[in-house]
Amino acid sequence: MKRKNYFTLLLLAACTVLLFSFIPQQTKTESQNNKTGKDPLPSWNEGKAKKSIIDFVTKTTKEGSVDFVPVADRIACFDNDGTLWTEAPLPFQLFFVIDRIKALAPQHPEWKDKQPFKGVLEGDMKTALAGGNQALVEMLMATHAGMTTDEFDKTVKDWMATATHPKTGRHYNEMVFQPMLELLNYMRANGYKTFIVSGGGIDFMRVWAEQAYGVPPYQVVGSSTKVKYDTTGAQPVLIKLADVNFNDDKLGKPVGIHEHIGKRPVFTAGNSDGDWAMMQYTSTGSGPRFGMFVHHTDSLREYYYGEGPGLAQLKKGLEDAAKYHWLIVDMKTDWKKIYPFNK
Amino acid sequence: MKRKNYFTLLLLAACTVLLFSFIPQQTKTESQNNKTGKDPLPSWNEGKAKKSIIDFVTKTTKEGSVDFVPVADRIACFDNDGTLWTEAPLPFQLFFVIDRIKALAPQHPEWKDKQPFKGVLEGDMKTALAGGNQALVEMLMATHAGMTTDEFDKTVKDWMATATHPKTGRHYNEMVFQPMLELLNYMRANGYKTFIVSGGGIDFMRVWAEQAYGVPPYQVVGSSTKVKYDTTGAQPVLIKLADVNFNDDKLGKPVGIHEHIGKRPVFTAGNSDGDWAMMQYTSTGSGPRFGMFVHHTDSLREYYYGEGPGLAQLKKGLEDAAKYHWLIVDMKTDWKKIYPFNK
Repeated sequence: MKRKNYFTLLLLAACTVLLFSFIPQQTKTESQNNKTGKDPLPSWNEGKAKKSIIDFVTKTTKEGSVDFVPVADRIACFDNDGTLWTEAPLPFQLFFVIDRIKALAPQHPEWKDKQPFKGVLEGDMKTALAGGNQALVEMLMATHAGMTTDEFDKTVKDWMATATHPKTGRHYNEMVFQPMLELLNYMRANGYKTFIVSGGGIDFMRVWAEQAYGVPPYQVVGSSTKVKYDTTGAQPVLIKLADVNFNDDKLGKPVGIHEHIGKRPVFTAGNSDGDWAMMQYTSTGSGPRFGMFVHHTDSLREYYYGEGPGLAQLKKGLEDAAKYHWLIVDMKTDWKKIYPFNK
Repeated sequence: MKRKNYFTLLLLAACTVLLFSFIPQQTKTESQNNKTGKDPLPSWNEGKAKKSIIDFVTKTTKEGSVDFVPVADRIACFDNDGTLWTEAPLPFQLFFVIDRIKALAPQHPEWKDKQPFKGVLEGDMKTALAGGNQALVEMLMATHAGMTTDEFDKTVKDWMATATHPKTGRHYNEMVFQPMLELLNYMRANGYKTFIVSGGGIDFMRVWAEQAYGVPPYQVVGSSTKVKYDTTGAQPVLIKLADVNFNDDKLGKPVGIHEHIGKRPVFTAGNSDGDWAMMQYTSTGSGPRFGMFVHHTDSLREYYYGEGPGLAQLKKGLEDAAKYHWLIVDMKTDWKKIYPFNK
């Protein structure tokens, strides 16, 4: 059971750092935004998507509105891969796994003849991944366990500072979506607490999410390995064990939200059917609720995918959009700009 | 293994609501507190305990101080039972269990002849608890699982509004410690995020912790049952399963902190050896750290316990206090007032 679900953990991984400019300096009230007359979502084209987001935030934060939501209940959840940053051609956490296997190979001469490591080392990902979930779990555990949490954090940090995306040549943490950064800031400026709820690794994301998105570690929900507090050495440490603790994907997302947040979200954003359950959980709550899917329709500026089968499919989400009043954001037409580094 | 540890879950339970006056309305900066000259801890007697707390908060929040801690790292963790509210003569969550068994008994005629339920129904707790961990787990699962999370929340809420403490006659949520409420507010006013890290049930605490302590559900860490997202009914629900998910006690506390918070605390308060590991985890971090144990030395105004063996023992904590520079708060001499309702 555990291993079966772990496929999605990896393939819906997680990642992005150092967008210093987007660390929220302070929160502004909705009225302040209105007063200044400043567009809170400048990278969103005018249209239904932008309008419906602003209308929702406005009505849920206006005192006296029938749809007013108290600040304590303003919970907004965001998937990460494909929602806050790019997840193609592979989820970025998988690039981390590949790079780590290469870096660790000298310490594991046996990997030369053993799949899935052999395939990774020879650049033959097809063969490496042919082993399915079992192979993926092996790769994950070889790179995400057997070290202290501090050691893992440093490894992720160093990787993020050096590794680059095969298509853009940019650091992965530069490939966050400018319109979503604006949305995160806009929600926070209106009293919403913003959480990441991702199938990606919680320890992987926390290293860079605070700088990239302004989301602190305690507002990141994700998949995890078990951790053990070890007091046998000179200094007590937390050791990451080669044992899956939680798979924060699909039906696991409402569970992860319950465990970590303990309140039903009012606003949720995702991009694939892996987010369907948390969107349904959000939208079936009483009172005003908002769900949105980012639809990857822009093959030129980003990637075109989602409708077909395979990774990050968005089928059930599109089918149920009318039923649950979900907004489908068309990346190509709704977003003026994709990445912060775009002109 | 799971069951073994569950004994402590119950016996170090968790609880308190409706102290409307203590919901933090806004945060104040440390300098504001200084400027107004207002005593941030009026229910603490002048002395080493009060001084060392204020000194620590002052030095970690003063720009330019060598001990300055950035706001993002100001994590403060508080045990609940015996630290933020009374836990005698039994942890309050155990009173909840007893009351629920009585309330549910008509639906379970078999309980009349079956321990531990028979003992509870006959007021013979000694026999009921003679079954050890196994008996406790049975009682917990009979009262904390097999319903939706919303149903459980309502049950706790209703119980908290009606049940009263055998000695004081007060509602349990009135029996929070006034000095600790002031400390929570003081920490928050100085940019610290306050978290509860308790062996008690996370779902049990979240129902009332926001009103009692100003600590929102997503800043509560505790023990939990597994939860399942169920979409088979007309409305999707989260069901609490009769399966232990996490035991947030002893060596589990640093693990719970890592899973939920993802940062090492700077400040931690506890009252028993169940908190020793999280205190050690806190105090072995680099830079300024603060650990404190509330020592229950006041048999008149509260209860006298801790040094002897048994529930909530504080032995290792006292032994290691000098080594880790932990503050031992003497309830009798350091606290001017115990409960908000005291004159």
